[in-house]
Amino acid sequence: MPEFLELLPPREALVHFLEQIQFNLVAETIGTSQARGRVVYGDVYAPHALPSFNRSTVDGYAVRAADTHGATDSLPIYLALVGEIRMGQAAELSLSASQCGLIHTGGMLPGGADAVVMLENTQIAKPGEIEILRSAAMGENVIKVGEDIQQDEVVIPAGKILTAADIGGLLALGITEVQVSSKPIVGIISSGDEVVPPEMDLNPGQVRDINSYTLAALIGKAGAAPRIYGIIPDEEGPLREATSQAVKECDLVVITAGEVASLRGPSSSGIMP
Amino acid sequence: MPEFLELLPPREALVHFLEQIQFNLVAETIGTSQARGRVVYGDVYAPHALPSFNRSTVDGYAVRAADTHGATDSLPIYLALVGEIRMGQAAELSLSASQCGLIHTGGMLPGGADAVVMLENTQIAKPGEIEILRSAAMGENVIKVGEDIQQDEVVIPAGKILTAADIGGLLALGITEVQVSSKPIVGIISSGDEVVPPEMDLNPGQVRDINSYTLAALIGKAGAAPRIYGIIPDEEGPLREATSQAVKECDLVVITAGEVASLRGPSSSGIMP
Repeated sequence: MPEFLELLPPREALVHFLEQIQFNLVAETIGTSQARGRVVYGDVYAPHALPSFNRSTVDGYAVRAADTHGATDSLPIYLALVGEIRMGQAAELSLSASQCGLIHTGGMLPGGADAVVMLENTQIAKPGEIEILRSAAMGENVIKVGEDIQQDEVVIPAGKILTAADIGGLLALGITEVQVSSKPIVGIISSGDEVVPPEMDLNPGQVRDINSYTLAALIGKAGAAPRIYGIIPDEEGPLREATSQAVKECDLVVITAGEVASLRGPSSSGIMP
Repeated sequence: MPEFLELLPPREALVHFLEQIQFNLVAETIGTSQARGRVVYGDVYAPHALPSFNRSTVDGYAVRAADTHGATDSLPIYLALVGEIRMGQAAELSLSASQCGLIHTGGMLPGGADAVVMLENTQIAKPGEIEILRSAAMGENVIKVGEDIQQDEVVIPAGKILTAADIGGLLALGITEVQVSSKPIVGIISSGDEVVPPEMDLNPGQVRDINSYTLAALIGKAGAAPRIYGIIPDEEGPLREATSQAVKECDLVVITAGEVASLRGPSSSGIMP
C-alpha cells in the first residue's frame, strides 16, 4: 500500500490550522444603519446615559406614589389633574401633594412625580379630578435616567458581530457611524484538469466548477469577502504562481483539489507503475 | 376605565394579518452565483443528468467486478494494467477480462469496467501488473449517470430560499442565471412627537428614532427591501398622507407608534377630561 500524507483528527487539524492564520485587518468607518453583520473594531462607549430623562412606560397619570397609598376600586383616591405632559417636550408642570398629570408612554416625568398609574387603573371623576383605583409603588411604570445604559459604559464590545438590535442601540445613543473591521479577503483557487467554468457545455469526463462559487457564497455568508482565482491546471508551475499571487492579496487562501499531476509519479506516491 | 381597541391572541392576529397581505412580486433574472438568500420564482428543471458520465469516487483501479471475486491480502488476484484514465477526458481504453485501468477520483469509468478498487486495496506486483487485495462488488466506488439528478427533474422548487449548496447545484448543471422573485418592498413609517432623527442631539423629553433602522435591518435580513419614510408628526393629516403614499409604493407598510394626538380627545378615548 502506497504512502499517504500525515492525517490528523479534525479538532487537532483545526487548531494547527487556526494557529497559522494571522489576519491583518484594518478599521473602516461605516454608517451604523448599514452595519448589520459587520464586526466591531474597538469597544464602543456610551456618550450619554439612556434614557436621558425619567420616562413613563405606560399611558396614565404621573403621581407622587405616597398620595396613592391605599387606593382600591371600592375606595379610590382622588387627585387633582393639573395638566398634560406633551410628548417630546420637557415636562413644564411640577406636582404638589394630591396632584397628578396626564402622561403618555415615553413621556418625561414631571417634577415632584415618582410613579405612574396606568390608565386602566384610573377613572375620570369629573373634569379636573381623577380617581386612582390602585396604589402605585415608588418608581412604578417609570424607567429612570441611565437605567438602560450608563454614560461611558461599553455598549458594544470589540469583536461583536452587529445585529439589528445593536444598530438600534447605537443609534439610540446618536452613534451614526461605527468603526468595523475590514472584511477578511478569502482567495479561492480551484484546480483539476476535469473542471470547466459553469457556463461551458460538458465534454465526456468533465465537470463544472461548483466549488469556487459554493465556497464564495459560504465565505460571503460568514462575513468575509471572497475572491475567485479561477480554475488552475493540475501543474506545479501554474498552481504555484496562482497560489503565490493569492497569498499576497488575501488574508486566507482556500485551494480545492490541487493535486499536481507531475507529482503523481512513482517517485512520490508510487501509483504510476 | 376607558375603552380600548379589540385585542386578539397573537396567533389569531397573525392569521388575520397574513390574510390581508397580497404580494405582487415579479420575476427578475440574476446571476446564480449572486443568488444566495433570494427566493426562486418558478420550479427549476435539470437540463441534463448529473453526473453526466459514470465517475469513480476514489483513486484506484477501474476493474470488471467479476474479475476480482475472491481476492484477499493473502490470495491476491493479478490484473494487467492497460492504461490510465486522464482527468477531464473521455476514457479511451476499454477493459477486457483480467484487465484494469488506473483511475483518479472523479475520473470517467472506461468501457467494460463496472467497479473501482481503492488504491489502498491494491499493490503493484511489477510494471504492468496490479495485485488486487480485496474483491469489488459491481458498482462499488462508482457514481452512475443520473445518480445525483435525473434529466428534467425539479432541482429547486419554486419558493425555495437559495443556499450556497443550491448555488453549487445549479452551477453544476450549467444554470448560470436564475429567475428569482423581486424583493418585497416594506415601507417603514415612524411617528411620535418625541422622536427625532438619530443624528440629532436630544432635548429633554426627546428620543432618537431607532425603530426605523432596527426594522430596516431586520427587513433586510429577512430578504426584503426596506424603505424608510422618516418620522411623521402625531397628526392625522400627515400620517394619512405618508401612509397613503407608502401603501402605493410598497408591498407592506409597517407603522411604529402612530397614535394621533387629535384622536386622543374625550370623544374617542375619554382620557382627556
